[in-house]
Amino acid sequence: MDRKRRAFLTEQNLDGLLFVGDSICDQDMYYLSRFLTTDRFTLLAADKIHLLVSSMEQGRASKESFADVVVNTTDFGIAEKLKASGKPEEAYLEVLREFLLEQGIKRLGLTNRFPAGIYSYLSRDFEITLLDSPVSRWRAVKTKEEIEAIKAVQKACEQALSLAVELISRSRPKGDYIYIDDCPLTSEMLRAVIEVALLERGCDAVDTIVAGGFAAADPHARGTGPLPANAPIVIDIFPRSRCSRYFADMTRTVLKGEASLEVEEMYDAVLDAQQTGLGAIRAGASGREVHSRVCQVFHDHGYPEREGKGFIHSTGHGVGLNIHERPSLGLAEDILEERNVVTVEPGLYYPEIGGIRLEDLAVVTAQGFENLTNFERRLVV
Amino acid sequence: MDRKRRAFLTEQNLDGLLFVGDSICDQDMYYLSRFLTTDRFTLLAADKIHLLVSSMEQGRASKESFADVVVNTTDFGIAEKLKASGKPEEAYLEVLREFLLEQGIKRLGLTNRFPAGIYSYLSRDFEITLLDSPVSRWRAVKTKEEIEAIKAVQKACEQALSLAVELISRSRPKGDYIYIDDCPLTSEMLRAVIEVALLERGCDAVDTIVAGGFAAADPHARGTGPLPANAPIVIDIFPRSRCSRYFADMTRTVLKGEASLEVEEMYDAVLDAQQTGLGAIRAGASGREVHSRVCQVFHDHGYPEREGKGFIHSTGHGVGLNIHERPSLGLAEDILEERNVVTVEPGLYYPEIGGIRLEDLAVVTAQGFENLTNFERRLVV
Repeated sequence: MDRKRRAFLTEQNLDGLLFVGDSICDQDMYYLSRFLTTDRFTLLAADKIHLLVSSMEQGRASKESFADVVVNTTDFGIAEKLKASGKPEEAYLEVLREFLLEQGIKRLGLTNRFPAGIYSYLSRDFEITLLDSPVSRWRAVKTKEEIEAIKAVQKACEQALSLAVELISRSRPKGDYIYIDDCPLTSEMLRAVIEVALLERGCDAVDTIVAGGFAAADPHARGTGPLPANAPIVIDIFPRSRCSRYFADMTRTVLKGEASLEVEEMYDAVLDAQQTGLGAIRAGASGREVHSRVCQVFHDHGYPEREGKGFIHSTGHGVGLNIHERPSLGLAEDILEERNVVTVEPGLYYPEIGGIRLEDLAVVTAQGFENLTNFERRLVV
Repeated sequence: MDRKRRAFLTEQNLDGLLFVGDSICDQDMYYLSRFLTTDRFTLLAADKIHLLVSSMEQGRASKESFADVVVNTTDFGIAEKLKASGKPEEAYLEVLREFLLEQGIKRLGLTNRFPAGIYSYLSRDFEITLLDSPVSRWRAVKTKEEIEAIKAVQKACEQALSLAVELISRSRPKGDYIYIDDCPLTSEMLRAVIEVALLERGCDAVDTIVAGGFAAADPHARGTGPLPANAPIVIDIFPRSRCSRYFADMTRTVLKGEASLEVEEMYDAVLDAQQTGLGAIRAGASGREVHSRVCQVFHDHGYPEREGKGFIHSTGHGVGLNIHERPSLGLAEDILEERNVVTVEPGLYYPEIGGIRLEDLAVVTAQGFENLTNFERRLVV
């Protein structure tokens, strides 16, 4: 990563890349520093990685981060500046300016996501280039350690999902709903089972989707209330490790009771689309091409996308420190590279029937892919 | 809030305020729309609140958000634009521009945190003013409902803390550490007890501080390993409700075994400082004045701040949808208003002794404050 960074700076004729934000929300900052904090800090990626933090954070930043140099705002007189003006943001901007001048920075790269107010302030004294984050591009190609971290979360994901599927399998259909011991099994109950299991494995899962029946026709609906009998239930889990900060992502669709021929045929089409999507993955392929093959399968099965129904989202996305990151398997022109980690998640959605989605997580290899997902695909449980 | 927004737009001569981001990270966007999503979306606060989301999010946004109008990027031809260029960001920017033109927007306000790339793009066609977020100012004054939401989290916080303090109280000091059934009680064990209790109450707590002995001299150290006997243990909890999204924040310092005279005197000084800080709170007071009184108490007790030791942080901060928000009780010139919710959290830190901090959460009232914290302050447990 040091090599990539230095090559990029030379090629773009920049003295450094600057980031201001917090590393909970800005994954580029976490990636470059491995310093996790909810409070705003400053990161300069030049020949070395520099952090500028509050004196309160100096100790933890020095201990926990991968940065080469950690300095604090107190050493740049933030308290005196703040006492003078009473304006925290002005004091910070002055400190930032002095810090950059002290590092001999003249030509500065800022990503398109950089805060506009600070960009505007720095434009007076520095020669600034706004650019797409190269760090987000670097992040798309995972190291062996990152793949191991994602695998660990994926494993926790599967264990949590198997508890949920087991409960559905043990339930009994009666009328419109499914029951455990005369109590209707709800989205909320399954979500709790999944999220507690994940927490026990050191992972946070938020907004886990457990949606059955008509509700599942909206691919982002989380689901509420009793789960239907004889209708597909979509379970989509995307937990993040509290420790490594990496995500995993997977989806299965199951049904308790009798599947209609219509639903069975939809399931088979999704299964076929997923196999085709996975089969199209290899380093050098374009995400757009993978997506277009998946669309073709749906077309061939008699499910063309029409008026917001059918296959209404892209085939997949990169997964890492963000749940949605590069590369995209959709309409964007992203070329797959070795060690990308991507989802392949075709689905079909019809308001009058419901939704069916199958999602695996895979590592792109030179010749194809390594599937990180080890969980059976079976509709009726 | 509609009234405040319209008055602000008129006063600043703006047609609208624009936000682009996700509402997990941008609390202004969540506050204005109550629409929660990890994916980037667009919010225009004009006479009405408009959301521009992907077609995937249209259903959920219409159902869950407070927005007056929800439109989607598909209706602005994002798929065709993306197919033409293969560049998602370019396609989005074109859609955004068309959306703003359709709304008749000419004079646009952007906050200083707005993404610089989009700011730069929009500058060509719109008359743009960069400004401090007025929404963050509005957020500082809570409604009755918001205060109730914070109270609920604070209550969960106290219940979790009481479990932790009870465990310490039941432990036995032996040599350097404290033990439960011959097993040393660790920071990790207490953190697990606290975080599970909070999850059971619908709250997420991340980075809860349970730090004893020398480690606690760094106010942001989370703490690891066996907890010390005869030395102060700082427990700082700041959970967020998964449902309401509001935070609470509190700290207690406890000790198992024998407290040295030195530690007892430090504790008394912190207690005195906290009472003084709380006593100085009322609508119209400046946060700076409250902070300066607290500093004076430490000075009078013989603990002047010196060389990064003693009372090395500010007295408190606002709490709401962010854990740290306005107003500040520190060096900034923030004037307290009725229905601000603020922490009062003086502390003393000496590397050779450790740390002591006491933190309550209070609502600012016309005459003083309402303390939302109901938890005893006792050093030896």
